[in-house]
Amino acid sequence: GDAAAGKAKAAMCAACHGANGIASVPTYPNLAGQNAPYLESALKAYKLKQRSGGQAAIMYGMAAGLSDADIANLAAYYSGLK
Amino acid sequence: GDAAAGKAKAAMCAACHGANGIASVPTYPNLAGQNAPYLESALKAYKLKQRSGGQAAIMYGMAAGLSDADIANLAAYYSGLK
Repeated sequence: GDAAAGKAKAAMCAACHGANGIASVPTYPNLAGQNAPYLESALKAYKLKQRSGGQAAIMYGMAAGLSDADIANLAAYYSGLK
Repeated sequence: GDAAAGKAKAAMCAACHGANGIASVPTYPNLAGQNAPYLESALKAYKLKQRSGGQAAIMYGMAAGLSDADIANLAAYYSGLK
């Protein structure tokens, strides 16, 4: 994925996951330094409604509008943060 | 949670999530330094079958046998790793 494109896309994620990938609320996951392939599979799981409970409904709303390229870019961006 | 009790319980997790919480395979999440409340909610989501796809079936097998105390201890253990 393209981390720079991911950074632009991540504006909508920052409110909960933090501008630096450290979650603003402890019930949300930190994304900084997480494995990119895992981030992709998690985003796709939300997009495919394979996750419910917790904030899954909010995450579906976020993921539904993302293309696979967006997902790869977001994963590259957050995995590259430390 | 009790991180020491969590460490003992984590033996069954280490194969995929690494002895130090850094996943052995990039499609699995790193757990080291992740937020404890998030880890608890994720484990409970697997236990309650609120997650499918990916390795959810394996994670259900792992989580099904965990008590809330085990879950809190595991979350304390992994969140404390860096």
